[in-house]
Amino acid sequence: MECDTLYTADYLITQNDARDVIQDAALAVAGDSIVCTGHADVLEVLYPDARRVDLGRAVLMPGLVNAHTHVSMSLLRGYSDDKALQDWLQQDIFPQEAKLTPELVELGARFSLAEMIRTGTTAFYDMYMLEDSVFRAADEMGMRAVLGESVTNFFPSIAAANVEEYCDRVRRYAEEWKDHPRIRQAVVPHAPYTTTPELLRLCRELADETGSLFGMHLAETRHETEQCLKDHGLRPVAYCEKLGLLQPDATFFHLVDIREEDALLLTDGRCAGVHNPASNMKLASGVSPVDTLLNARVPLGLGTDGPASNNAQNMLREMYVASLLHKVHHLDPTKSPAQQVLTMATRGGAEALHEPRIGSLEPGMKADFIALSLDAPNMQPVHNIVSQVVFSSTGAEVCLTVVDGRELYRDGIFTTCDYPALLEEIQQALAWTRR
Amino acid sequence: MECDTLYTADYLITQNDARDVIQDAALAVAGDSIVCTGHADVLEVLYPDARRVDLGRAVLMPGLVNAHTHVSMSLLRGYSDDKALQDWLQQDIFPQEAKLTPELVELGARFSLAEMIRTGTTAFYDMYMLEDSVFRAADEMGMRAVLGESVTNFFPSIAAANVEEYCDRVRRYAEEWKDHPRIRQAVVPHAPYTTTPELLRLCRELADETGSLFGMHLAETRHETEQCLKDHGLRPVAYCEKLGLLQPDATFFHLVDIREEDALLLTDGRCAGVHNPASNMKLASGVSPVDTLLNARVPLGLGTDGPASNNAQNMLREMYVASLLHKVHHLDPTKSPAQQVLTMATRGGAEALHEPRIGSLEPGMKADFIALSLDAPNMQPVHNIVSQVVFSSTGAEVCLTVVDGRELYRDGIFTTCDYPALLEEIQQALAWTRR
Repeated sequence: MECDTLYTADYLITQNDARDVIQDAALAVAGDSIVCTGHADVLEVLYPDARRVDLGRAVLMPGLVNAHTHVSMSLLRGYSDDKALQDWLQQDIFPQEAKLTPELVELGARFSLAEMIRTGTTAFYDMYMLEDSVFRAADEMGMRAVLGESVTNFFPSIAAANVEEYCDRVRRYAEEWKDHPRIRQAVVPHAPYTTTPELLRLCRELADETGSLFGMHLAETRHETEQCLKDHGLRPVAYCEKLGLLQPDATFFHLVDIREEDALLLTDGRCAGVHNPASNMKLASGVSPVDTLLNARVPLGLGTDGPASNNAQNMLREMYVASLLHKVHHLDPTKSPAQQVLTMATRGGAEALHEPRIGSLEPGMKADFIALSLDAPNMQPVHNIVSQVVFSSTGAEVCLTVVDGRELYRDGIFTTCDYPALLEEIQQALAWTRR
Repeated sequence: MECDTLYTADYLITQNDARDVIQDAALAVAGDSIVCTGHADVLEVLYPDARRVDLGRAVLMPGLVNAHTHVSMSLLRGYSDDKALQDWLQQDIFPQEAKLTPELVELGARFSLAEMIRTGTTAFYDMYMLEDSVFRAADEMGMRAVLGESVTNFFPSIAAANVEEYCDRVRRYAEEWKDHPRIRQAVVPHAPYTTTPELLRLCRELADETGSLFGMHLAETRHETEQCLKDHGLRPVAYCEKLGLLQPDATFFHLVDIREEDALLLTDGRCAGVHNPASNMKLASGVSPVDTLLNARVPLGLGTDGPASNNAQNMLREMYVASLLHKVHHLDPTKSPAQQVLTMATRGGAEALHEPRIGSLEPGMKADFIALSLDAPNMQPVHNIVSQVVFSSTGAEVCLTVVDGRELYRDGIFTTCDYPALLEEIQQALAWTRR
């Protein structure tokens, strides 16, 4: 087996089945794939002609997967905080979103993608309006993504005058982005409480017709459950089951107000879920019962949600918050240990994106990986490298981000965007909100 | 009024009584004090001869105050995580601490101080064993600090064979560090459950005798309350009141298992408290009722606790965690808003350290301030600079840290420590734990 590039570092977290951690490690890459991992001195002998990238005092690990977000909402980062959910949406977020243009959506996306690349995220699952702008940003900036045009029952929206135009949009995306090596479409109705049963069934059919995945916000708050019981006589997950939405290509975001019976329905449907701890905390939605979901064997990814309710796109911080939240919620410090949240952010994210070629560093997997420098004073001494990554990092330690074998970021330099220009452009968001 | 140096930046968060934020701002410094703040164009005219430091796209703000920590425990960062408190202490922490030397305590302290300086903390309140090592580190590295030799009822300790030796140590520190411009001693018994009433009374007398402050862990867990009720027939705060410990120079750390009646006793004694959200979450101690404390007008600082239970010394992260915790705990997104947690980390910290000359950027206050760059993709666009600092920063944005008018860190360079050498030295912690 050939090898183009050999990356070496003090540590390598494989996230393989055995969760092996290798010291004085090397990662051999050929094209867009991983050839093998092992001890540096062995791999250096095996691949004497490979290009060498010695990262030194650093840890190589799988790229993080942000399994639920709305990247374009970086435009509204910090625009409205510390407010009740409905006030936040109705008074602040929706009025701004009504003025969005494709150019603004793309600018917001590019800025969030820069943040994700900068903080070690290599793949993400996004839903928003005018999502073709996000497809372009993800394509050009080299990230792996599942992307969906969000739809509700309220027409006209900024993206479609009616449901037919929405369907045309989904079909157009399917045509334009079919067979893309890194990007896949999802059909993503917004939530049970913003759609009709008819629209949800239509979305499911559209996913089948276009070969897209299926995703939706689900069971985000108690209020949603109460509304669903009132409108449909069923809890949200059971309502989705009745509509035939619990399929193996489906991913449901948030899953906060979940009982064991709900988790078992998701298991039966072989669906994936995504946990969004920081957003659930900041919007006071509640605490997702991740142990109930994991015990029911629901594959679970981790996501930041949009930058307006987080307010970052930093999966390293998200892992930290996830672990702390469940420990205090259950008054049990053994809950959501470092290794478990790291698995959510890597292998779990791969399952949430229905992308089996990512999530661990093993032969044959896609070369989606990152490195964190261990030079900063929060990263030493290293007694346990997994603890260090989850509990001590800030995100700024990321010194290398690679997707499909391509370096998107290294030591302060973005290779797929003109970051200084982007930083000037994002100022447009201020004028837009004041328009 | 003269001015040595004029710092300019896009934003300045004053944390004055009106909580003014200034755009296109300047901060005028003379010696160790702030001369004034205002608009850059005005101050540039007022002080044409001052040295100019233009920080550009950045925010100037008061230095953060880490009001409760054990800095030397950076040695044990990540050594033991995800464990029940008693297992963590008995199996992992105490056996290592029994092997500590003054040199190791100082090394651990210096490393944490580097982390705090790097992430915008300018003052801290620390308690540990062999604390003279921490006095030296804080003095040489230029930070502001309240420092105390922790004592329990268990002798011999690594610092003292008996209570007389402990008292001698406190008297010696008082003599050695009296009239230090930045460092003050506190007498700090460990906690009600590790001391006797006699030892606590002795500590209070020792504080009076030596002119030291007084601090203690208090009401950290429900278990502590149960034990206190069993042993003394009183809840922990009432027990302290009975012993005469509730005095205006006292600061109590954690305050998790607190009822309104406890908060009112603290108010009566004019004591300060410190909230440690991340540690309380990670060790699953519970959620401190900060609103109850603040409503009772207990001055409240914010602290990280030691690096072994956090696992960082990053007050920017701590503010974020604090706000999120209370929102989800009360299922109310208006709880602990950004401005409130920033106040805890600045003015509240000043009260917890009983140091009225810090906490805001106003004429006559000490020149303890920091700047955060707004160039990173998590820090734009700026709709609300306070939200940005609290909800979006990682800590790595800090580009300038100043204490008493002296620059301790600027753009990657530490001026009061040889950081590369320290990074090599901290590896000694690995050998120590394996000894």
